[in-house]
Amino acid sequence: MPTTDTGKLYRNECTGPALELANKHSKPEDITLFGSCFCPFVQRVWAAFEHLQIPYQYYEVDPYKKPKDLLEVSPKGLVPGLRFNNFNPPRALNESTVILEYINDVAEQTNGRSLLPPVTNPYARALVRLQCDHISRSVIPAFFRYLIPQDPEKQLEGKKEYLAALDTLIALFERTEKEIVRETGSAATGEGEKKALAKGLGLWVEDNEDLGMADVMVGPWIFRSTIVLKYYRGFEMPVGERFTQWANKLINHPDFKSTSSTEDLYLDSYERYAFNRPNTSQVADAVNTGRGLP
Amino acid sequence: MPTTDTGKLYRNECTGPALELANKHSKPEDITLFGSCFCPFVQRVWAAFEHLQIPYQYYEVDPYKKPKDLLEVSPKGLVPGLRFNNFNPPRALNESTVILEYINDVAEQTNGRSLLPPVTNPYARALVRLQCDHISRSVIPAFFRYLIPQDPEKQLEGKKEYLAALDTLIALFERTEKEIVRETGSAATGEGEKKALAKGLGLWVEDNEDLGMADVMVGPWIFRSTIVLKYYRGFEMPVGERFTQWANKLINHPDFKSTSSTEDLYLDSYERYAFNRPNTSQVADAVNTGRGLP
Repeated sequence: MPTTDTGKLYRNECTGPALELANKHSKPEDITLFGSCFCPFVQRVWAAFEHLQIPYQYYEVDPYKKPKDLLEVSPKGLVPGLRFNNFNPPRALNESTVILEYINDVAEQTNGRSLLPPVTNPYARALVRLQCDHISRSVIPAFFRYLIPQDPEKQLEGKKEYLAALDTLIALFERTEKEIVRETGSAATGEGEKKALAKGLGLWVEDNEDLGMADVMVGPWIFRSTIVLKYYRGFEMPVGERFTQWANKLINHPDFKSTSSTEDLYLDSYERYAFNRPNTSQVADAVNTGRGLP
Repeated sequence: MPTTDTGKLYRNECTGPALELANKHSKPEDITLFGSCFCPFVQRVWAAFEHLQIPYQYYEVDPYKKPKDLLEVSPKGLVPGLRFNNFNPPRALNESTVILEYINDVAEQTNGRSLLPPVTNPYARALVRLQCDHISRSVIPAFFRYLIPQDPEKQLEGKKEYLAALDTLIALFERTEKEIVRETGSAATGEGEKKALAKGLGLWVEDNEDLGMADVMVGPWIFRSTIVLKYYRGFEMPVGERFTQWANKLINHPDFKSTSSTEDLYLDSYERYAFNRPNTSQVADAVNTGRGLP
């Protein structure tokens, strides 16, 4: 593992598949997605746009320079942000989880696609929301508490916490699956319902190829675990056939992979986190001062 | 302000209007709501059950004793929890925000009631979700960072943070209102839509008497500010006619007030927070160690 901060800078242009996708989506559309190539909160929204097949323009911004047009769509100057250009003045939306719910609502009503189980099954939707709540409040904070601290003891604590959070996520997937099997085993529901529910549970279901809400919510951190945490912290993903299968399927899913840059972009962009450089980001400040993520 | 911890214990039975309501809902129903009389996370769900007119049995539990039946519906032993009794073994759900979305989904499909703008207006729903996200991630943590620390400087910091979070909440209400006015001023929408949107924005709309999602999400903390923060920290609610009007309307709304106990219950139950007694709760532990709330 590297022991010296080589002063690499974060990138401000996508590479690899993500660059190709950004170029493909560089023309004006009703919705502009304000994104940054290295940002996991952006990637979850970007992958959802792709999977839900909602038209958008991808617009790369540097959130550390807080350009005026970004501040107009996102008051804290954080990415992702959406601008709806068909209004004057334009409307806007920020916060990745709120954006995800929004574009899912739009897709359900326009093209019938969805990252959630059908509205007619509120309990299945709630089980998926439990997974998402756990990702936001446990998995992601633990990732950063593993990556940012410099004290080896604190890193070890962070690692344990991250692994425990992933274990709980697996347990939540398993619980959802069990409930869905129970549900669809009943006489009241048929094959169509089973498929719809599996879709909501996402890639965890072995024979399902559609992303679920939890997949897009957590995907960017799973992906960065295999690059950034591996390189800077020597992290190995939890062993376990089912988990490994799911994680690989997720990272390589066409709608996720197309939003991914090459490994060097992440290694460069996260060096400042790994060495906890001053003024790294609002996320790093929150971890360093013991606050919730912004 | 009191300077000595008098060792009062948290209560385990509702008083006043809440006791009356608990008694009214003591008979078995399809859904059992596991609650604790002092808990704000419970009160938001309880008020939503009332407002959405979904049948339930209220079941008082002591979350610090972690009874087995509570652990069966809520893995961390936290309230609120729901048990769905029409299944064998029973189904369960925990996490107040997930429960709120769930019972709102159920109400929309069964009796047409809702705490959110109509599904046909995803942008209005998203603006309300922005309010809710801010409540969960800023208002509530700031409340506890004001109440729990013993160092006067930290208390002052907490107070400033709490006031700033309330200011931002007001700004989010105003933004939603402005967008809704803009929306309903267009030729595409009529009076019915305006009413539906106002309903989603909740009590902030002056001539609206229906609770919105943000109202039930934040109500318990607004209420406790006027009792617990006032008594233990000398807190006065922000001046401002519109805010005061909203806060009073909220605290006195029949569906909220009916879930409220008498002031002495909260003063007794929160003394251990106000003096930061050891082993107070998972919430207090999180604040003391600089972690996100459980």
